[in-house]
Amino acid sequence: MNEHSQNRLASLTNYLETLQVDLAIIKDPKNVFYYTGFYSDPHERFMALVIDLKKQSRYLFVPSLDLEMAERDSCIQKIVPISDEVNSYQVLKDAIGDGITMLGLETKVISLFQQEQLNEFFGQFSYQNIGEFISSQRMKKSQEECNKVQHAIHIIEKVMAEGIKKVKEGMTEQELTAELEYLMRKFGAEGPSFSSIVLSGANAALPHGQPGSKTINRGDFLLIDMGVIVNGYCSDITRTFVIGEETAKQREIYNTVRHSTQAGVEAAKAGIPIGQIDIAARNVIKDAGYGQYFNNRVGHGLGMDVHEEPSIHENNHALVESGLLFTVEPGIYIPGYGGVRIEENVYIDENGKGKVLTSFPTELMRIGY
Amino acid sequence: MNEHSQNRLASLTNYLETLQVDLAIIKDPKNVFYYTGFYSDPHERFMALVIDLKKQSRYLFVPSLDLEMAERDSCIQKIVPISDEVNSYQVLKDAIGDGITMLGLETKVISLFQQEQLNEFFGQFSYQNIGEFISSQRMKKSQEECNKVQHAIHIIEKVMAEGIKKVKEGMTEQELTAELEYLMRKFGAEGPSFSSIVLSGANAALPHGQPGSKTINRGDFLLIDMGVIVNGYCSDITRTFVIGEETAKQREIYNTVRHSTQAGVEAAKAGIPIGQIDIAARNVIKDAGYGQYFNNRVGHGLGMDVHEEPSIHENNHALVESGLLFTVEPGIYIPGYGGVRIEENVYIDENGKGKVLTSFPTELMRIGY
Repeated sequence: MNEHSQNRLASLTNYLETLQVDLAIIKDPKNVFYYTGFYSDPHERFMALVIDLKKQSRYLFVPSLDLEMAERDSCIQKIVPISDEVNSYQVLKDAIGDGITMLGLETKVISLFQQEQLNEFFGQFSYQNIGEFISSQRMKKSQEECNKVQHAIHIIEKVMAEGIKKVKEGMTEQELTAELEYLMRKFGAEGPSFSSIVLSGANAALPHGQPGSKTINRGDFLLIDMGVIVNGYCSDITRTFVIGEETAKQREIYNTVRHSTQAGVEAAKAGIPIGQIDIAARNVIKDAGYGQYFNNRVGHGLGMDVHEEPSIHENNHALVESGLLFTVEPGIYIPGYGGVRIEENVYIDENGKGKVLTSFPTELMRIGY
Repeated sequence: MNEHSQNRLASLTNYLETLQVDLAIIKDPKNVFYYTGFYSDPHERFMALVIDLKKQSRYLFVPSLDLEMAERDSCIQKIVPISDEVNSYQVLKDAIGDGITMLGLETKVISLFQQEQLNEFFGQFSYQNIGEFISSQRMKKSQEECNKVQHAIHIIEKVMAEGIKKVKEGMTEQELTAELEYLMRKFGAEGPSFSSIVLSGANAALPHGQPGSKTINRGDFLLIDMGVIVNGYCSDITRTFVIGEETAKQREIYNTVRHSTQAGVEAAKAGIPIGQIDIAARNVIKDAGYGQYFNNRVGHGLGMDVHEEPSIHENNHALVESGLLFTVEPGIYIPGYGGVRIEENVYIDENGKGKVLTSFPTELMRIGY
């Protein structure tokens, strides 16, 4: 990790020099991980990679309780621990000193409170947003990063394959979630990459519903949307099953979504506007008369975060390029009836071709009986 | 939930009127839940409870894909769905209109980017921080809220009791974590309230370490710090065990921490400065000669968030008062050797007395053989 971190830091530093900022503060924990090799969720504590362009110095500020881990994992030499009873911004000021008038900040990460604190210790300053550069750097994944996502996909597909064998009519969504998350750990994941979505029957119409005490019954759609995080990289896959035998309407809805996902995946290649992927998938659902039941974007970038750049929606006019890695996950959600979503993960390889990383079958499967 | 939400909203609205803000935007998802009864993690999507003081109106802006859940759960009548391809701040502006010059914002939640967006659509505005009022409102828990935390504690203590029966020499930290998290769901939790910490041997010296492929061996300390979320409320408990038989040094360290936790818990009552709880616990560890190995605050508030107000550190001079609910969790962490933490959850009842909500034994337990 350290060699990669060093290269990434060098690119960022070059960019910061063009901006003529005095100091850059990188606070997003995943961004800190990306540039240092050290990951921690500091909750409300202060943690930041700080690049002092004037002194050509880099610091990693960490909560005291993370010092040992930071020393073990980080490529940054100057690690400054901050204990809980002191003001973090005072510590920052003591390390950096005066004369800071232009800051580089992740504007989507820094809060008004943090700005007020920085003002208090460094005086009034101007800032420039460095978040977009960082997102665009992270967005373009190397083959090695793609391999890490692929590994996380491999594990979640094993979980899906084993997990659906455990589905029985009458078990609750929550019980099934317990089985699935147990398998995630068992197969080597650090944990779920997001709150697992396991929904049956009418609940499956809630794109972000939480698994609950509802039992999984014959005739239900069963929607499973889950992912794992392994070595800092995420997977995110959705499959929808039918318990017992499907009706003609269920089959029609399912196959419409399946063709929609295929259309989105097939559209994905370097050079086209990102929005075309959404439109390609959406048109299949619209043409089948279900357009009103698909109300969200078709996908999102996937990497160290389970949701990152790029956002795959119809108004994204940026071009698809090599290194992008994202989900394609159209769905039909009919309130009170149920829903279907089928989600693949796609990587745009060095030749600009879309490579589907997910391999779990997409044909309608009858399970649980 | 709706009646409570209405009362809480009424208190907040009274406060906002004293601030003379035109509009308040509440964005923290847990705060939205607190005031509306509706919970969703919108990730990067826009979600907010908006209170228009001039028009005496309240709006709940939600991602389109959460509309059905919001209509089901929220006490707010005017729900405005926002689809992925539009600018959320345009939608906000269209609903609210002009003439907004003073905003009430949670300054720890609103990012510089969001401020820029608000500026673009509403022009330059001043703001006042409403986050501290909300935190202080949430900090004082009713008996009913305490009961919800108690329920989450009850579940995690069952998990602890069953989970340690599964510990075997040679199993990995990750395998044990899988068992524990399986039990969480099985016993009715929505999931872990934070990333479970299961560390053995020298790893137990990392207060925020992640369970990994290290095997749990005879003679190790085994530190388990975990919690669950149930009906929106969290528990957070730590116990440390010894695998096989402890050494005299391990026993000394363990009992020092145990007495430290007891001292912290016994100090907790209304009227004393919050910092006294930290100091009471810390002094036990200092007096035993381990002061350098306890480098973080002794505890934190616990409720809808696993870390919330108040922060229990020695420089917190605010007074303990009825309704506070927090952890007391001193530890001794010796790099390269191992660590011990024992964590209780305490509620300050209506009479100002500290009530320990946790009941899992704190005597040193030998397990796994």
